Amino acid sequence: MLLIHKAMVSGLRQACRLRSTPSRLCIRACSTNDSFQPQRPSLTFSGDNSGTGGWRVMGTLLGLGAVLAYHDHRCRAAQESPRIYTKEEVSSHTSPETGIWVTLGYEVFDVTEFVGLHPGGPSKLMLAAGGPLEPFWALYAVHNQSHVRELLAQYKIGELNPEEKVPSTLETSDPYADDPIRHPALKVNSQRPFNAEPPPELLTENYITPNPIFFTRNHLPVPNLDPDTYRLHVVGGPGSKSLSLSLDDLYKFPKHEITVTLQCAGNRRSEMSQVKEVKGLEWRTGAISTARWAGARLCDVLAQAGHKLCETEAHVCFEGLDSDPTGTTYGASIPLARAMDPEAEVLLAYEMNGQPLPRDHGFPVRVVVPGVVGARHVKWLGRVSVETEESYSHWQRRDYKGFSPSVDWDTVDFDSAPSIQELPVQSAITEPQDGETVESGEVTIKGYAWSGGGRAVIRVDVSLDGGLTWQAAELNGEEQRPRKAWAWRLWQLQATVPAGQKELNIICKAVDDSYNVQPDTVAPIWNLRGVLSTAWHRVHVHVAS
Amino acid sequence: MLLIHKAMVSGLRQACRLRSTPSRLCIRACSTNDSFQPQRPSLTFSGDNSGTGGWRVMGTLLGLGAVLAYHDHRCRAAQESPRIYTKEEVSSHTSPETGIWVTLGYEVFDVTEFVGLHPGGPSKLMLAAGGPLEPFWALYAVHNQSHVRELLAQYKIGELNPEEKVPSTLETSDPYADDPIRHPALKVNSQRPFNAEPPPELLTENYITPNPIFFTRNHLPVPNLDPDTYRLHVVGGPGSKSLSLSLDDLYKFPKHEITVTLQCAGNRRSEMSQVKEVKGLEWRTGAISTARWAGARLCDVLAQAGHKLCETEAHVCFEGLDSDPTGTTYGASIPLARAMDPEAEVLLAYEMNGQPLPRDHGFPVRVVVPGVVGARHVKWLGRVSVETEESYSHWQRRDYKGFSPSVDWDTVDFDSAPSIQELPVQSAITEPQDGETVESGEVTIKGYAWSGGGRAVIRVDVSLDGGLTWQAAELNGEEQRPRKAWAWRLWQLQATVPAGQKELNIICKAVDDSYNVQPDTVAPIWNLRGVLSTAWHRVHVHVAS
Repeated sequence: MLLIHKAMVSGLRQACRLRSTPSRLCIRACSTNDSFQPQRPSLTFSGDNSGTGGWRVMGTLLGLGAVLAYHDHRCRAAQESPRIYTKEEVSSHTSPETGIWVTLGYEVFDVTEFVGLHPGGPSKLMLAAGGPLEPFWALYAVHNQSHVRELLAQYKIGELNPEEKVPSTLETSDPYADDPIRHPALKVNSQRPFNAEPPPELLTENYITPNPIFFTRNHLPVPNLDPDTYRLHVVGGPGSKSLSLSLDDLYKFPKHEITVTLQCAGNRRSEMSQVKEVKGLEWRTGAISTARWAGARLCDVLAQAGHKLCETEAHVCFEGLDSDPTGTTYGASIPLARAMDPEAEVLLAYEMNGQPLPRDHGFPVRVVVPGVVGARHVKWLGRVSVETEESYSHWQRRDYKGFSPSVDWDTVDFDSAPSIQELPVQSAITEPQDGETVESGEVTIKGYAWSGGGRAVIRVDVSLDGGLTWQAAELNGEEQRPRKAWAWRLWQLQATVPAGQKELNIICKAVDDSYNVQPDTVAPIWNLRGVLSTAWHRVHVHVAS
Repeated sequence: MLLIHKAMVSGLRQACRLRSTPSRLCIRACSTNDSFQPQRPSLTFSGDNSGTGGWRVMGTLLGLGAVLAYHDHRCRAAQESPRIYTKEEVSSHTSPETGIWVTLGYEVFDVTEFVGLHPGGPSKLMLAAGGPLEPFWALYAVHNQSHVRELLAQYKIGELNPEEKVPSTLETSDPYADDPIRHPALKVNSQRPFNAEPPPELLTENYITPNPIFFTRNHLPVPNLDPDTYRLHVVGGPGSKSLSLSLDDLYKFPKHEITVTLQCAGNRRSEMSQVKEVKGLEWRTGAISTARWAGARLCDVLAQAGHKLCETEAHVCFEGLDSDPTGTTYGASIPLARAMDPEAEVLLAYEMNGQPLPRDHGFPVRVVVPGVVGARHVKWLGRVSVETEESYSHWQRRDYKGFSPSVDWDTVDFDSAPSIQELPVQSAITEPQDGETVESGEVTIKGYAWSGGGRAVIRVDVSLDGGLTWQAAELNGEEQRPRKAWAWRLWQLQATVPAGQKELNIICKAVDDSYNVQPDTVAPIWNLRGVLSTAWHRVHVHVAS
């Protein structure tokens, strides 16, 4: 968070001095999770929110537009001698007890009194507590209004020390030293490699997840690739030829664009580890996100190399350009039948939500396999080959598989289970959160639901009484194409809290169009790697009396 | 059962008098559920039982071969004046208390003492209690051995009255009067229309379900169709032409043969109605069976009519030749995308396990839609058309849909749910049965598992302690093709019963290759029509001390 802050503040200072370069700074400061400058920058972030209408978040541009305009305003207006704070001081003010401080540019605000009045809800403002507002304003253009800036000005208590240096925490020998800067809203499960998820209250705020808070699942350091020299190697074999494709070569294939939800096999693992210890990152409900992806279809690229669908079982193996110190790269594979099926829409994607892929999401090219577990969507794609066997990578053969609850690390036989490809039906509650207190009267319950294999979500049942009675939630989001429902549905339910109720045991469960359902409880699907955690999602909340 | 008996006995008597026509009688007496004579009769019933080996049941031929040979033997041997019984007397002896009687030809046997010694298990012999053995011996050729016949002779107590007439229970005005004769092992859930399932202990005896005990789900009287005048009408439209296809025309299309499991949406409904009343037949675990189907691919027939896959959503509507007194025929539809996909292998089937379709299973032509609910496999197929909307039939629009447990008959909106097509993952225990007593030491648990949409079953977990611990069962049956696993797996587990255990709470649950699982309990998936009953299957048994 300190690093982000530094980038923001120095960006703004430069903007003050060098008024000729605001748009460059805008990208740098606002995208925050990517230091690479796109070749063909598209600063408008856009996505459809529903089948009937649409919304546009001009986040990246407008968010910083607000920041720059406000900063300009303050440069001219305020000439008092303000009280000076360090970033460390600010970062220690994150609760009602200590006071809740935030910064915008180099100004410091105490918003303790305002948190409860925040129109987007206290929890969203709390995400910025102790740090800069800019990354959040960049996501939510609604803040770009003069009355918001005026309101904030009332809470100003001082300014950041302009002389403060950011301590150098990264050593050059650290293989992760070159990783990109990330958005401070992300809940970090591991720094090296970087793994993080958006907080629930932001996850379902938009049907299309903004790039900066899209969940990130890295297995290795993020490579820093030069788009001019980047080449994708498509390996030839009997009856096919090898290809070496530059980015421009890939752009020449028909551009195919689809909305696809990605989910890590470990999403909601933290619930499984409460049953019994598992090996893996403690993902909560956020290892899932949705983007609009564009790129060349894998079937078109394979066809150009002369590959055909064959009668015998075959696999398309992918290798990333991320590697560990021994040179081992990330790898995975999918069946050739899926790769060659135009209806499966497997992409070699170079755009995410209208922008070049962020570094954390595979710049310049990643695989997107609609309806399939995230682990097969290989990032920083370097090599594609057609093989008679699945990828020999650790992640294909010794990970991302499901086992019976009775199997432990002494008895596991990884060859006995198939690699996870299509995922089962899943859903979770994002609002309210476990342990929260809700008002009596009416409560709004929100969440997401998704199923693998292109199966549409047809219903989400919600219970407020621990599963005794159920109500069907309202489903929102893009219309789902038959057999190609690659993206989630967001859902919500306005429910009445019965008078005198002290607490609610809220549950959600989804049904897909094969009428598959989620299992009731976690223990019977427990597995040693903590994958496929798809039991009913349960949230316990208190009701304010 | 009395009717069957009459057919058997009269068939045998004729065999005794008219020795020149045994093979004709053989078909008549043994197939028992079909009075039509196949044009190209194939009397050998065969099917593969596993990926490595195979078995052959020469049931139809050998079963009656045994009967005829035995009858011949008895005709020559026994000249005493036997005690004479009516069929009604025999039928009242079905328990250890009354004595357990069976017949073979016109001889009557009291097998009360033998039941416990039956090598196939007491429960299988008990299926024939009070009636003829022939239909069972026809299924299990192992009985065609002289020592079996000698053994049985020891239990003879008399003969059936040769003068006895079968009371005419059917009136000619009964629309069901012309329904075929059925196998007595079938557990009948409704006579008019006829709906029946095989008993659990026979269901998983063979990977391929023998035709006579394949579960039967009729909605209307069984039509009696003349194969010579039969025509299938394929309706033309813009860009396509109408076809009128005779059976011979259908035989000219490439013959496609696949093993497919059919399951009724109401399978295991009886468990759901224990939670709360539902409307529907009380199917136990037997509304599922597997056969080897052969016929023309629907995509080939539609292509000949000039139909093509179109960009907009379309449906292939099927109409049966079964109808009610008002002329309403059975109807259903599937999406055109599935119908036109050669990989989906939708058949217009005219053979079932190497024989012409039995009348109860759609003679002469039915639809087989692999991976999809039984309701879409329209029998006695008369008409195929491509429409922009789903079939308007009751069974497509006002039935065979799933709803939330909170929806009742006052609130149901049938348009709010999609018609069931692919079914979710399912499994059940067939041995031991609920309430049985098993020996201490080792217990064998058997069952089936299947999933819709061509998804393979990858694991079946079995618990003996109500779900606290689980063991993976051994999976048997044909190898499952990726994305085309249309047929079930049979499974079994040899488990040790802990010493001192008084009872076992046995549970099974299956996992498919999308890692979909079954829900733990029935109540949260309860729905007013009692369909999609796929919760863990639970069996409570006592342990003999």
